[in-house]
Amino acid sequence: MTDYTAKLQALRAHLAEVSLLNGISAALYWDQMTYMPRGGAAVRSKQLAYLSQQTHARFTDPALGKLLDDLMPYAESLPADSDDAALIRVTHREYQRAVKVPAELVAAIAQHTSETYQVWTEARPANDFSRLQPYLEQTLNLSYRYAECFAPYDHVADPLIDAADYGMKADDIKALFSQLRAALVPLAQAITDQAPADDTFLHQHYPSEDIERFTTDVIKRFGYDFERGRLDKTAHPFAVRLNSGDVRITTRYPENTLSDPLFSTLHEAGHAMYEQGIKADYEGTPLAAGTSAGVHESQSRLWENVVGRSYAFWQYFYPHLLSIFPRQLNGISLDQFYRAVNKVERSLIRTEADEVTYNLHVMIRFDLELQLLEGTLRIADLPEAWHARYQADLGVRAPDDRDGVLQDVHWYGMLIGGAFQSYTLGNILAAQFYAKALSEHPEIPDEIGRGEFSTLHSWLRENIYQHGSKYTAPELIARTVGKLDVTPYLTYLRQKYGALYRL
Amino acid sequence: MTDYTAKLQALRAHLAEVSLLNGISAALYWDQMTYMPRGGAAVRSKQLAYLSQQTHARFTDPALGKLLDDLMPYAESLPADSDDAALIRVTHREYQRAVKVPAELVAAIAQHTSETYQVWTEARPANDFSRLQPYLEQTLNLSYRYAECFAPYDHVADPLIDAADYGMKADDIKALFSQLRAALVPLAQAITDQAPADDTFLHQHYPSEDIERFTTDVIKRFGYDFERGRLDKTAHPFAVRLNSGDVRITTRYPENTLSDPLFSTLHEAGHAMYEQGIKADYEGTPLAAGTSAGVHESQSRLWENVVGRSYAFWQYFYPHLLSIFPRQLNGISLDQFYRAVNKVERSLIRTEADEVTYNLHVMIRFDLELQLLEGTLRIADLPEAWHARYQADLGVRAPDDRDGVLQDVHWYGMLIGGAFQSYTLGNILAAQFYAKALSEHPEIPDEIGRGEFSTLHSWLRENIYQHGSKYTAPELIARTVGKLDVTPYLTYLRQKYGALYRL
Repeated sequence: MTDYTAKLQALRAHLAEVSLLNGISAALYWDQMTYMPRGGAAVRSKQLAYLSQQTHARFTDPALGKLLDDLMPYAESLPADSDDAALIRVTHREYQRAVKVPAELVAAIAQHTSETYQVWTEARPANDFSRLQPYLEQTLNLSYRYAECFAPYDHVADPLIDAADYGMKADDIKALFSQLRAALVPLAQAITDQAPADDTFLHQHYPSEDIERFTTDVIKRFGYDFERGRLDKTAHPFAVRLNSGDVRITTRYPENTLSDPLFSTLHEAGHAMYEQGIKADYEGTPLAAGTSAGVHESQSRLWENVVGRSYAFWQYFYPHLLSIFPRQLNGISLDQFYRAVNKVERSLIRTEADEVTYNLHVMIRFDLELQLLEGTLRIADLPEAWHARYQADLGVRAPDDRDGVLQDVHWYGMLIGGAFQSYTLGNILAAQFYAKALSEHPEIPDEIGRGEFSTLHSWLRENIYQHGSKYTAPELIARTVGKLDVTPYLTYLRQKYGALYRL
Repeated sequence: MTDYTAKLQALRAHLAEVSLLNGISAALYWDQMTYMPRGGAAVRSKQLAYLSQQTHARFTDPALGKLLDDLMPYAESLPADSDDAALIRVTHREYQRAVKVPAELVAAIAQHTSETYQVWTEARPANDFSRLQPYLEQTLNLSYRYAECFAPYDHVADPLIDAADYGMKADDIKALFSQLRAALVPLAQAITDQAPADDTFLHQHYPSEDIERFTTDVIKRFGYDFERGRLDKTAHPFAVRLNSGDVRITTRYPENTLSDPLFSTLHEAGHAMYEQGIKADYEGTPLAAGTSAGVHESQSRLWENVVGRSYAFWQYFYPHLLSIFPRQLNGISLDQFYRAVNKVERSLIRTEADEVTYNLHVMIRFDLELQLLEGTLRIADLPEAWHARYQADLGVRAPDDRDGVLQDVHWYGMLIGGAFQSYTLGNILAAQFYAKALSEHPEIPDEIGRGEFSTLHSWLRENIYQHGSKYTAPELIARTVGKLDVTPYLTYLRQKYGALYRL
C-alpha cells in the first residue's frame, strides 16, 4: 500500500505540472482575447504553440503511462466513488486518448487552426469565403488524420464527437436529433404562423456600463464569485478557467442591442459557475474540469434560458432593469418585455436564435459536418449548401457568406466535427437537470421570482459542479436524471411557448 | 564557416525558447499586478516559480554553454560592432553569470522573495515591521549566499550591484555619491531656507479618467506606441516588456493628487519607449532588453523630469491641462503650476521626492544596505536606523514604519543590495544623455515647447534604445557621452533650481 501511496503522490506531482501548463495557456489565451495589443499577436501565437507542445509532451510521457498502469489495480481495489480511484481511472483514459495522437499531428493542428482563425478574423468581415477554402480543405484533412488515430470506428465523426462528448457517437446524435426535429418543426411553424412579438425597443442605444451594472448584479445573485473571477469585454464571448480560484468570463456590447450582451453574460456565467463549483481538492488534476462539452453547455443554457428568460426571473428583475433604462423601456410592460426576449423567429444567426429554433441551426451545422466528413459534400460547395439548408429548414437565406457559412468560429478555429452537437445536448440536459431539481425543490421558481437562486445553485453544485470530471457525462447523467431524454425539454418548450402563444 | 552558421542557428533556437518562457512570465506578472482576482494568487505564484525554474534550467543547459564556447572564436573573428558577435558575447557573459548560481538557490530566492512580498503587502498597511523581521533576516542570508557565488569580490555588495549595473562596484558608487552629496546638501539647504512653493491645488479631486486622457495624449506625443502597448491601473506602477510588439505600462490614481499619476505615467512611458525602441531583429535573444538598470532609469527619469517637469513642456501642455481641469486649476498661472510641480521639500517618500532631494533618499537606502551586508547593522535595528538617517539627512522623521523602512517594495520583493543605486545613476545619466542630445540638436527645447518630441526621441532611439543589450552600460556610455560624470546633472539642477529660486 505504501508503494501505491508513493505512486499516487508521483502521479499527482506529474499532473500538477500539466495543470500549471494548462493554466498558463488559459491565462495567455484570456489576455489575447481581451487586452493584448495588436503588436503582441505574433509572439503570443508562438507562446501558445510552445505551451501546447510542452503540455502534450508532459501528458504523453511514458513515465506517466507506467505510473497509471501500475496504479490501475489500486484504483480497482478502491470503492467506485473514491476520488483517488476516479483520478487514476479518468487520467488513464485521457492518457490513452492522448498517446494515440502523434505530437507532430497535435502541433500541426494547433498551428493550422491558429492560422485559420487569424484568416477568418479578416475574411469574415470581408465576406470572402474563397480565402478560407484552402484552409478548410486542410482542416478537413487534419480532421481525418485525427479520426484515423482512433480507428476502427463506426463513423469517421465518432472520434471527434467522443472527444467533446464522451460516450456519444454520430448515430446516437442523429437519432436524438431526428426525434427532436419531429417535434420542433411543427412547434416553430405554429408559432411563426402568428404575428411576431414586438422587440423593436430592445434594439436601441443601451449604454454598455449600465448593462454591465445590471448583469453584474444578476450573476452575483446567481452565485458567480467575483473574488474568483472577473468580467471583461471581448469580440466573441467565452468563459475560461485559469484555476479553481480564477474562472473568468467575457462579454460584448454590440451597438443597439440589449439582449445580446445581457444573455451572453448570463450564458458565460453558467459555464463559469460550473468550473467555480468544482471541488477545490481536484485542483491540479484532470478532474478539475467540466466533464463534457454537452454537460458544460447544459449549465450555460440553463442559466441563460431556463432561468434568465423565465417569467419568474423577469418578475423580479424587470423593475430593476426599468429603473436603469427608464427612457428606453418607457411604456413597456413586464409582459411585453417577456414576450420580446422570447421572440420566436426564423433567423440567420445561431447565437441570437430563440429557444425553439436554436436547435434547427445546430442540426444544419451537424449535418453539413457529417456530409463533409463522409465525402458527400466538398468544401467548395459548402457556402451554397449552407444557404440551401437555411432555406429548407428555416425559410431564410443570408444575403452573404458573412452571416452564412462564415458566421461561427468553430470550423475556423478547431477541427471540423464534434463541436456543434454539444449545444443541443446542452439544451436537452438543461431541461432534464432543471426538472429534476424542481422535483426535489418545488420552491425554486418562487425563489427565482424573489431574485434568489441559492437552492437551485446548491442543487447544481451538489449534483453536478463539485464532481468536475470525476464522473463521465453518461455516469453523471445516470446518477442524476437516469438517461438522456428529450421529453423534459419538449415539455418545457411546449409549456412555455404554449402559454406565450396560446397554442 | 558553415559549422559556425549552424551553431549560431542552434544558439538562436535555444535562446528563442528562453525568450518565450521569459515573455510568458512577463504576461503572467502583468496580469497578476493588474486584473487577476484574489482567488488566482495561489496558483499564479506556483506558475511563476515553475516558469522561473524552467527558464533557469534552459538558460544554464550545458549544451548552451558548449555552443557558446564553440562560437566565441567566431565572435572574435567578427567586427566588434557586429550583431552576431554581440549576441554571442553578451549571451556568453550572461550564461557564465547564470551557471554560477545553483538552481536550488535560484528557486529558494524566488520562493522566499515571493512570500516576503505577500507578507509586506499586509504588514505595511498594518505598520508591522516585526512580522517582516524574520523574513528580512532570511533575505539577507540569501543575499550573502548569492554574493558568495561570485567570490572573490572586493565588497560583498559588488555582485549584487553588478547584476543590476554591470561594471559598477560599491566603491565606485560610494565615490560618486559622496561627490553628489557634497553638492546636493547645500543646494537643498539654500532652497528649503526659502518659503516653500504652494502646491495645495495639486492636492484635490482630479477624476482619474481625465488624468488618463491627458497623460495618454502626452505619452503618445512622446512616441509611446499604443499599437504595441497599453496603459492599465495597478498598485505600484511598473513597465513590462512582454515582447518587442507588446510593452505595457501601468499607473495608479491615488485620491487627491494630480502629480503622482501624471509623473508616474510619464516615468513608466520612458522605460517602455526604451524597450519599444530596441531593434526588432533582437527579439528572442538576450539583446532584446535594456542594458542596465541605471540606463533604464535614465530613460524614465529623462522623460518624467528633464522633459516632463520642464518649463518648455508646460508652456505647451499647461493650457491643455487647464482646459481639462478648469475648476481645479482656476486662477493658477503657468508659473505657479511650474513651481508647484517642482516644489523642493524635505519629505518622507522617495517616489514623491523632488529632483533635488531625491538622491538623498537613495543614498540613505544604499548606505543602509551596505551596513546590513557588512554586518554593522542588524535587521532588528533597521527601522530606527532608517529614522535616524532621515532625521540626519533630511531633517524629517516618519510617524511610523509604514512611511519609514516599509515604504519601498525592494527589500521585500528582491534581495538586499544592488537595487537603489540605479535610481541615482539614472538621474546622472539622464542629464548626460540630454545634454549630449542638446549639443547635437539645440532645437530640442523649442520643439518641446511646441509639444513635439521627435528629434529627442529619434536621438535616444538611434543612440540608446535600438541597441538593447548589444553594448554594456559602460560601452554605451563610452559611445555616447564618454564616461559617467555628475557635472551635467549638477549643472542642470543648478540652472533649473537657480532660476526657480533665484539662487
